[in-house]
Amino acid sequence: MIYVVGLGPGGTEEMTERAVQALERCQIIVGYDSYIDLIRDRFQHKQLLSSPMKTEVDRCRQALALAQEGYDVALVSSGDAGVYGMAGVLLEVCSEADVKVEIVPGITAACSAAAVLGAPLMHDFAVISLSDLLTPWSVIERRLHAAGEADFVVALYNPSSRKRADYLQKACNILLSYRPASTPAGWVRQAGREGEEHQVLTLGEMAQEKTDMVTTVIIGNSSSRIIKGRIVTPRGYRELP
Amino acid sequence: MIYVVGLGPGGTEEMTERAVQALERCQIIVGYDSYIDLIRDRFQHKQLLSSPMKTEVDRCRQALALAQEGYDVALVSSGDAGVYGMAGVLLEVCSEADVKVEIVPGITAACSAAAVLGAPLMHDFAVISLSDLLTPWSVIERRLHAAGEADFVVALYNPSSRKRADYLQKACNILLSYRPASTPAGWVRQAGREGEEHQVLTLGEMAQEKTDMVTTVIIGNSSSRIIKGRIVTPRGYRELP
Repeated sequence: MIYVVGLGPGGTEEMTERAVQALERCQIIVGYDSYIDLIRDRFQHKQLLSSPMKTEVDRCRQALALAQEGYDVALVSSGDAGVYGMAGVLLEVCSEADVKVEIVPGITAACSAAAVLGAPLMHDFAVISLSDLLTPWSVIERRLHAAGEADFVVALYNPSSRKRADYLQKACNILLSYRPASTPAGWVRQAGREGEEHQVLTLGEMAQEKTDMVTTVIIGNSSSRIIKGRIVTPRGYRELP
Repeated sequence: MIYVVGLGPGGTEEMTERAVQALERCQIIVGYDSYIDLIRDRFQHKQLLSSPMKTEVDRCRQALALAQEGYDVALVSSGDAGVYGMAGVLLEVCSEADVKVEIVPGITAACSAAAVLGAPLMHDFAVISLSDLLTPWSVIERRLHAAGEADFVVALYNPSSRKRADYLQKACNILLSYRPASTPAGWVRQAGREGEEHQVLTLGEMAQEKTDMVTTVIIGNSSSRIIKGRIVTPRGYRELP
């Protein structure tokens, strides 16, 4: 049996009980170094196998091989394992294998970042990763244009890295062709983890921000506004003060 | 103090520990009837105040009034309170009040449904509600076109109700103008609750399905495929078997 478990944003108190129970049921927990670090203290009685970034397929094969040896194995991702996480990769790797896979959802970064920033996702939203490691930039650009044109709230994952220092700026500039520079926006770094930081600003200012891979960016839609320092996208309760 | 707490899909084992702790810290828990029912057994030692649908603003005012009387109050939503939930409404209602509000995220229906169906949200996705109670249908249509045009995976909330029996069909027909009828799709009813049902089918078949308000629908993108009865949207790991 393989459980693919989303850990949520960071601290183990943001895991669901179902996720905790799945990890307790397993003898071995497999994951990317810094995700294993998130659960090391609480699950030190388990065998923890960590591996570096960009070895996702090998990690899935490792989990499969261990399951085929008879172990119950958990494969962990931060956030939700089904959103840019390990769930899909594992199902692909196991496509020919006779092994049971259960996917245990977790809180994805769009939701944990939104809670820190206020309530920006109260209306239709698009989740877009700015990583072009596996996706041509032209596809990403097309999605940013579509999100801008249809006034979606936008959550950006992987907004930039050392190699892609100007991607967030490019993304903001596309959205700026559809909504005003004053549109509320915000970023959250290390949501739910030690050293969490966040900032509420405008789309115009966001285009000048420096972010990194552990940051999630949210850009409001045309009716989002700031209430006491928080971003709120109305659902349409027009009668409110 | 008011905590706005996302309960996740259903059973209390899908709540985070942080959410459980927030409810434990409060004397009073306020929410829509069927959300209070989800937690009634586990939190029967609390004062539980339930109210019917479409009284969201009154419910927030009630929570605010109780907080101003000195109680710690939790306002609960199923899923994530920040996604079409109570978080934004409460922040609007409290815009003039001197009260602390903490938003505790939960697992939103897109993520819990995705985990049941496989791993359809492994790439960029759009979350769209088909409810036109507070949003003109023309805006919803525009968003469906944008999502279709830019090949987003699409998660549909509130896909239909008695009054809107053909909305899901209309939405599928829009997406069918951009992606083939064979595109993998699925629905999950009562995710994580007693009587959970789900079905994996195609976009063409989905256009003929009858769903209701407690169903979440997911439509794959042009590269989604079925692996052993589950929907998988590849991230782009081209070297896989």
